Amino acid sequence: MNLPDKVEIIEVGPRDGIQNESNFIPTEKKIELINALSKTGIKRMEAVSFVHPKYVPQMKDAKEVLNGIEKSPSVQYMALIPNEKGYDRAIESDVHSLSLVVGASDSFNLKNVKMSREQSITNLATVIKKAKANDIFIRYSIATAFWCPFEGKVDADLVLKMVEEAEMLGADEIVLADTIGRANPKQVFELFQAALSLKTKASISAHFHDTYGLALGNVMAALEAGVTRFDASIGGLGGCPFAPGAAGNAATEDLVFMMHEMGIDTGIDFEQLLACIELLKPYTNRELTGHLHKVKGCQS
Amino acid sequence: MNLPDKVEIIEVGPRDGIQNESNFIPTEKKIELINALSKTGIKRMEAVSFVHPKYVPQMKDAKEVLNGIEKSPSVQYMALIPNEKGYDRAIESDVHSLSLVVGASDSFNLKNVKMSREQSITNLATVIKKAKANDIFIRYSIATAFWCPFEGKVDADLVLKMVEEAEMLGADEIVLADTIGRANPKQVFELFQAALSLKTKASISAHFHDTYGLALGNVMAALEAGVTRFDASIGGLGGCPFAPGAAGNAATEDLVFMMHEMGIDTGIDFEQLLACIELLKPYTNRELTGHLHKVKGCQS
Repeated sequence: MNLPDKVEIIEVGPRDGIQNESNFIPTEKKIELINALSKTGIKRMEAVSFVHPKYVPQMKDAKEVLNGIEKSPSVQYMALIPNEKGYDRAIESDVHSLSLVVGASDSFNLKNVKMSREQSITNLATVIKKAKANDIFIRYSIATAFWCPFEGKVDADLVLKMVEEAEMLGADEIVLADTIGRANPKQVFELFQAALSLKTKASISAHFHDTYGLALGNVMAALEAGVTRFDASIGGLGGCPFAPGAAGNAATEDLVFMMHEMGIDTGIDFEQLLACIELLKPYTNRELTGHLHKVKGCQS
Repeated sequence: MNLPDKVEIIEVGPRDGIQNESNFIPTEKKIELINALSKTGIKRMEAVSFVHPKYVPQMKDAKEVLNGIEKSPSVQYMALIPNEKGYDRAIESDVHSLSLVVGASDSFNLKNVKMSREQSITNLATVIKKAKANDIFIRYSIATAFWCPFEGKVDADLVLKMVEEAEMLGADEIVLADTIGRANPKQVFELFQAALSLKTKASISAHFHDTYGLALGNVMAALEAGVTRFDASIGGLGGCPFAPGAAGNAATEDLVFMMHEMGIDTGIDFEQLLACIELLKPYTNRELTGHLHKVKGCQS
């Protein structure tokens, strides 16, 4: 069993998690949560997204949130943008890292950002050029990299081509995302093994959802393939408003617990992480899908 | 990634799952469920347990259930017994397979069957002798093989010694059970690899709970180690009345889905399996923890 000594957990709860909540979470509460997460030892975070407020109203205060948080010098705060317009809004704030997203599946991409996949890539290429000139870190997420809610299983060769394309465009990090949580550990192992064998300068990260209960099984498969960077969302919050049937992300606390139990360092304080979930609870109507906040007296 | 072509799923829902339900499930409903499960392609099942009705009242009708089901010739129906008294009750029914259980942890074993571990083993040795004379198949479960709710992490060497002991006593199958769902994939991989290297004549099976969300991650680790036999409970029902904090078993439908997605044959009809969960739902007050019965329009 091929396991690393340490991994990096990228917290996407404030963005991927919260964006699906139907009730608007007050700006100061979002700021409080991000500030608390910054103190857990988490080093990277998707904090907000600059998307059209008509489509994702929860993120309409992205600028206020980003300008309101106490920026820890040891934390990378990322803002997700879907297109060039998002970029123009994002750079009005103090942003050093952007998270771009394009769907491997055309049908999904059309629903998600109202453009074909190729249009998206052309659009993002312009964004990357501008961003690079401003020394901005580029996280490039390939959504529906395994399965599409509309088209079914996604062709691995297409995804690998997109990885090479992202590298060529200048991405610093490439994320293969199982947007609907439908990938299986074998598929995950094979795609990440192939992606890592491309030896891109960009680092390769994994993003899993738990719709079919496979998030942590998929993390194990990705670890085996050599991946050491994983997205997760506290409480297991998340989903995708444009991906029918998608459930929450891999729960950060479950992922951290599993890693610590295997002797793999995350740099994250488990108790402080659980305390962040308590901050979140009053603002979500959902039953959180993570397991660890329910287990009494567990230690990590 | 080392994956087999097929695995055997052992359904423990009618025993490990149902025994934790507080409301008594009518005998005819238990029979209906077991009969339906027998038609899914499941080849082995823990159908009942012969334990003292004072401790596990849900199983007080074990004899009626065992005598009431339509026994499919292709299904092995197992009855769990904790001790010699259980054996005497079990053989009054038409039983060909017994599931014995002893805790690796002394403290757990005392709570579970009111005997020390060594007393249990002596007692079960007598049972096995009698059973072997009657040509009865012996499944020998080592409970708390990874973690004990009272003593913490369990010593792997002790468990391996118990595996050798079970082999010597004549067990046909040895189950390493993570009774409280606290094992991690690394621990699972290492213990199963070591257990399989003993090359026992008895087959080696894995039994996981999902308390910490690690059941399927642990299945992946056990698969990697070479295990091809897995216990599971429909809906993810289960727990242990004598193991505080233990949540449900690995959900059969999630496990079957994951295997099928990876191209691993289980012999089980997925749709028929989901139909069994519908039979169960009216008789449990719990929210079922399995994922697959919640996902609309999923296929396997």
